[in-house]
Amino acid sequence: MKQLLVIGIGAGNPDYITMQAVKALNRVDVFFLLDKGPRKDKLIDLRREICAQYISDHAYRFVEAHSPERERGAVDYTASVDDLNKAKQRTFERLINHELSDGQCGAFLVWGDPALYDSTVRILQVILASGVCAFEFQVIPGITSVQALAAQHKVPLNTIGRSIEITTGRRLAAGQVSEADSLVVMLDAEDAYKRVDNAQTEIYWGAYLGTPDEILISGRLADVADEIERVRKAARAEHGWIMDTYLLRKP
Amino acid sequence: MKQLLVIGIGAGNPDYITMQAVKALNRVDVFFLLDKGPRKDKLIDLRREICAQYISDHAYRFVEAHSPERERGAVDYTASVDDLNKAKQRTFERLINHELSDGQCGAFLVWGDPALYDSTVRILQVILASGVCAFEFQVIPGITSVQALAAQHKVPLNTIGRSIEITTGRRLAAGQVSEADSLVVMLDAEDAYKRVDNAQTEIYWGAYLGTPDEILISGRLADVADEIERVRKAARAEHGWIMDTYLLRKP
Repeated sequence: MKQLLVIGIGAGNPDYITMQAVKALNRVDVFFLLDKGPRKDKLIDLRREICAQYISDHAYRFVEAHSPERERGAVDYTASVDDLNKAKQRTFERLINHELSDGQCGAFLVWGDPALYDSTVRILQVILASGVCAFEFQVIPGITSVQALAAQHKVPLNTIGRSIEITTGRRLAAGQVSEADSLVVMLDAEDAYKRVDNAQTEIYWGAYLGTPDEILISGRLADVADEIERVRKAARAEHGWIMDTYLLRKP
Repeated sequence: MKQLLVIGIGAGNPDYITMQAVKALNRVDVFFLLDKGPRKDKLIDLRREICAQYISDHAYRFVEAHSPERERGAVDYTASVDDLNKAKQRTFERLINHELSDGQCGAFLVWGDPALYDSTVRILQVILASGVCAFEFQVIPGITSVQALAAQHKVPLNTIGRSIEITTGRRLAAGQVSEADSLVVMLDAEDAYKRVDNAQTEIYWGAYLGTPDEILISGRLADVADEIERVRKAARAEHGWIMDTYLLRKP
């Protein structure tokens, strides 16, 4: 039987990796690398560094695959992600069938945690259900950018006894959020925090969390929203990409 | 200056600890242990085991403190937590002032992640703001039971492009939850999943996650709610305590 591991490698800082992930890395024969776009080189380099740092005496190889891109612009978001996942599914099937022998162990290294806004687990479940490939798989949790954000700002995600909503910039921009007093926003490409009505809302914002390039800004939206927009734009121009997340807390 | 570390040690499995936490443990002179109730001995033993396992060449000592209990029964929940936190604050102040010398490093070991339903960070911020003690502190994230739950069930926490609400059993029982299709419930002492209207909702339930006693049950509420209630009751009777969490996913 083929073995697959979906390993959460944490958010940016190689020290965020868990002992469980280190043990898992040391069982892997083939690492599948699937990043794309401007972040590609940086993120693939970081994965290679993590392997070099933590794998002690096990031979392994990397297989890079072209990762399909989601169709952008005026398309239905869920449908475009669905199409993307179907394309990824074919890529995964090819990798599992052609790049991994029986008894070998393959791995996908996922930034943050495989359970949070990542499609790897969902795609593997679809492939298993389809019967196109046979394998066993295991998921190894990792520290998310949300946790890095809270730790670096030294702030709890929830207020006492209340809920937290974790959502996307897209949903915040569309007003599709609940009344939760703590709102964590990920994948925000459009500065959706500027659409929040109550300017007394506190924001805890962070970019490139856990890396040497980390930027943290916090305060009332009234005071810091413009600064975040300016810093964010400049950082994206400098690096060619940005990964950021934030917590909004109602007063 | 005194240094304090709030170290997330993950949910149950010692392998969930991060490299960052291991490095932090090795800087600590004094560990403050504050568990209470029936779980006390087991959880304090686990903390001592983690220290013994990961600290290589640094002398340290444990200070156990009586941890105040929240007043239960027909009292206002937020007020009772607030009272509890004031009592905890006095305990923390005493520990920091009397058990730690200048230049020393003290630590609180928090199950899961310090940002999620834990009061340590909130209390330290209050103490710092009050000026009663002077110290610097750092927060180290850890794998939560929510992440362990998702990993063990091999299921994503979110559906494509949608929100996740993380909430308490108390709020679910009171109907104080949003329309999110993915709802993570923690701290449920009253089998609140039985109050969910739609019996087609899928539940992914786990107890003692990451430990050798781990129990996992999943399925439609119509099929498994009674089983979860029965297993949960039996496990609590056997162990004297239970820590469980679950994901509800609307159809």
